[in-house]
Amino acid sequence: MFNVKSMDEVFQILKDNFSGISSENETVGILECVNRITSFDIASPEDIPGFNRSSVDGYAVISSDTFGAGDSIPAQLELAGEVKMGIKPPFVLKNGQTAYVPTGGELPDNADAMVMVEYTEDFNDGYVYINKPVAPGSNVVFKGDDMKAESTVIKAHRRLRPQDAGAFAAIGASRVNVKRKIKVGIISTGDEVVKIDSKTTGSQVRDINTYSLCAGILEYGAEPRIYGIVGDEYEKIKELTGKAVDKCDVVLISGGSSVGSRDQTRKVISSFGAPGVLVHGIAVKPGKPTIIGKVKGKAIFGLPGHPVSAYIVYKIFVCYLLDVINRLADEPAKTVRAVAAGSYPSNNGRDEFVPVILKSADKSPSAFPLFGKSGLITLLAQADGYIHIKRSSEGLCAGEEVEVFPF
Amino acid sequence: MFNVKSMDEVFQILKDNFSGISSENETVGILECVNRITSFDIASPEDIPGFNRSSVDGYAVISSDTFGAGDSIPAQLELAGEVKMGIKPPFVLKNGQTAYVPTGGELPDNADAMVMVEYTEDFNDGYVYINKPVAPGSNVVFKGDDMKAESTVIKAHRRLRPQDAGAFAAIGASRVNVKRKIKVGIISTGDEVVKIDSKTTGSQVRDINTYSLCAGILEYGAEPRIYGIVGDEYEKIKELTGKAVDKCDVVLISGGSSVGSRDQTRKVISSFGAPGVLVHGIAVKPGKPTIIGKVKGKAIFGLPGHPVSAYIVYKIFVCYLLDVINRLADEPAKTVRAVAAGSYPSNNGRDEFVPVILKSADKSPSAFPLFGKSGLITLLAQADGYIHIKRSSEGLCAGEEVEVFPF
Repeated sequence: MFNVKSMDEVFQILKDNFSGISSENETVGILECVNRITSFDIASPEDIPGFNRSSVDGYAVISSDTFGAGDSIPAQLELAGEVKMGIKPPFVLKNGQTAYVPTGGELPDNADAMVMVEYTEDFNDGYVYINKPVAPGSNVVFKGDDMKAESTVIKAHRRLRPQDAGAFAAIGASRVNVKRKIKVGIISTGDEVVKIDSKTTGSQVRDINTYSLCAGILEYGAEPRIYGIVGDEYEKIKELTGKAVDKCDVVLISGGSSVGSRDQTRKVISSFGAPGVLVHGIAVKPGKPTIIGKVKGKAIFGLPGHPVSAYIVYKIFVCYLLDVINRLADEPAKTVRAVAAGSYPSNNGRDEFVPVILKSADKSPSAFPLFGKSGLITLLAQADGYIHIKRSSEGLCAGEEVEVFPF
Repeated sequence: MFNVKSMDEVFQILKDNFSGISSENETVGILECVNRITSFDIASPEDIPGFNRSSVDGYAVISSDTFGAGDSIPAQLELAGEVKMGIKPPFVLKNGQTAYVPTGGELPDNADAMVMVEYTEDFNDGYVYINKPVAPGSNVVFKGDDMKAESTVIKAHRRLRPQDAGAFAAIGASRVNVKRKIKVGIISTGDEVVKIDSKTTGSQVRDINTYSLCAGILEYGAEPRIYGIVGDEYEKIKELTGKAVDKCDVVLISGGSSVGSRDQTRKVISSFGAPGVLVHGIAVKPGKPTIIGKVKGKAIFGLPGHPVSAYIVYKIFVCYLLDVINRLADEPAKTVRAVAAGSYPSNNGRDEFVPVILKSADKSPSAFPLFGKSGLITLLAQADGYIHIKRSSEGLCAGEEVEVFPF
């Protein structure tokens, strides 16, 4: 039977065996960068901004000229000029002078602060009257305040977000170096499994796992490769697995991971030689019969055939593996705070993942555990997320605060 | 000056004016369905599963034949046959009979429960001995248990996830009807703004907003259209806005939304006639000078020019508008629980959005508020998310539990 390992043991095995098995890079346009992962630290080639920039509409001053100014005794400063947007001021500010600068405009040399237009008066007599003192640096973004030349803007091994495209635009980088997408091969096994456009007869079922896994891999930002459906025949599974291992970084084989007579995945993995099978059985529910192996340096998962089990093992373990290969930093989990709307006993010594529906309620949303036979794909289509019940826990109590991991 | 409105007032104005301004649909392959939004309820054309399916390897029985069975007095049942995967059993079970069925196989007619192989013994004498009684329905997924013919599998106006592709595969739907992506035009204004591949001179800055907004719109699942950069000239902004309004559902104009002399967006929106400007000024920080208008039934946003302000207004208000147009149900926010690592005063009567860095700590991660001048794009590139400080609050206290909205 199984030699069952805990979740944490499996995570450690994945780290020990597959860190850095793919390290190729490529460049993409910055509008394609979101959800890609940086390969290297990305530095700014120049100071940003490249000039002292006003963050208000108002008057540039040498701040010491305004010290002591107030409503009753304004500082009277000579108007030296008006700065135009996008153009370097053609004059230098001297003590006793001021100049109008719009938001985003450059301060003339020597100026070290901006006074908002609200605190000034201009009677068109060649002078501007300042009603409020300003400290050095007020309302100014100095040259290099945003990024210093050569400083790191975005670190390596980080998943890029839309605002990062903005940071690249700021430094004039229209393309960016990212990791090559991890290639994940998908094989569906089972004599009963047929293509999704088939009319089913007898006890045939359509190939669900290829599609939920493929869509999941696309969402992660990896590259799925579909190898199709193969019956429960050792030689055919072995042949297809060999092909997938040659072309992919990770191979997922769904079905055939239990210990029944039809269960060939373990045998196929072993047939490629050492190290072969690393894990057979994980103390989780669903997902216990999961197999993890290493063939020609690549990672192979034998996933359960049940669609719910296969997808949950994908979310928990395969996504963890992809993060390991991409060297992604551990990120805090994004969860929804909710209150358990029902009790759910769980004392089977396994980490359990319970699909839940979220419904809005007074303060926190309510999380309704979905009870259901694990072969039901509608369980996942209905669920908004899942709750992780730790193996040391006895389950959920209605009214308890829970963290829901959104699907 | 501004006639400032609260966040909630602005949300209501967006709902009242723009619900249902786009209602076209299209079909996509199920591997392209993730992050798209369903147009209609999607129903199963048939019962799923289409047969009574075993969820274990074991023996099909008429459950009443096992009542009273135990280790000392097993139920002795005649072995009527072995069911093959994917094939309808060619026999009917009679009382006193049993048949081997693998996981996923079909139960013979009359059988109503499965006994796991672990609780049986087969001495190859033509009989199988059952050591444990089973209740009707045990270890069986009955025909239609997952989906009844005609029942709704996925509801309308719902953002699709990878497992939903699996649900479509189950019902043999290789394509699915979804809403046409909302078209969002992007215009960048400002005499100082230059293309991102330009070498900047004087106080020019590169066009950051087009890229962060465009990437954000792609991430949301809408269709960005870039209209480029235009200087602070009323006629040119008007011409480009007119073009964008004709082709898009929503138009974002960044820069020029304040009340300074260069600020043309309000004038442009008004020039197209009633209803024109709906909002000028929102009680939020950053983002106060935001304009919202309605031109030819389309939504126009005048976003602040500062990249941080523009992007935060995009996340809070433009994404809300896109949800309204798509009729997406309110979903509970996905947040990260954290502990404020520093205090942050905020008593300006506005809802404030404070970018934070998350660092792993003992129990909850720590959220470090990023103090910085609002023109700094690196503020957003560094931030892992933001905290929403409500206008009624006085700010954050170090040590307080907070919810971080991840970027």
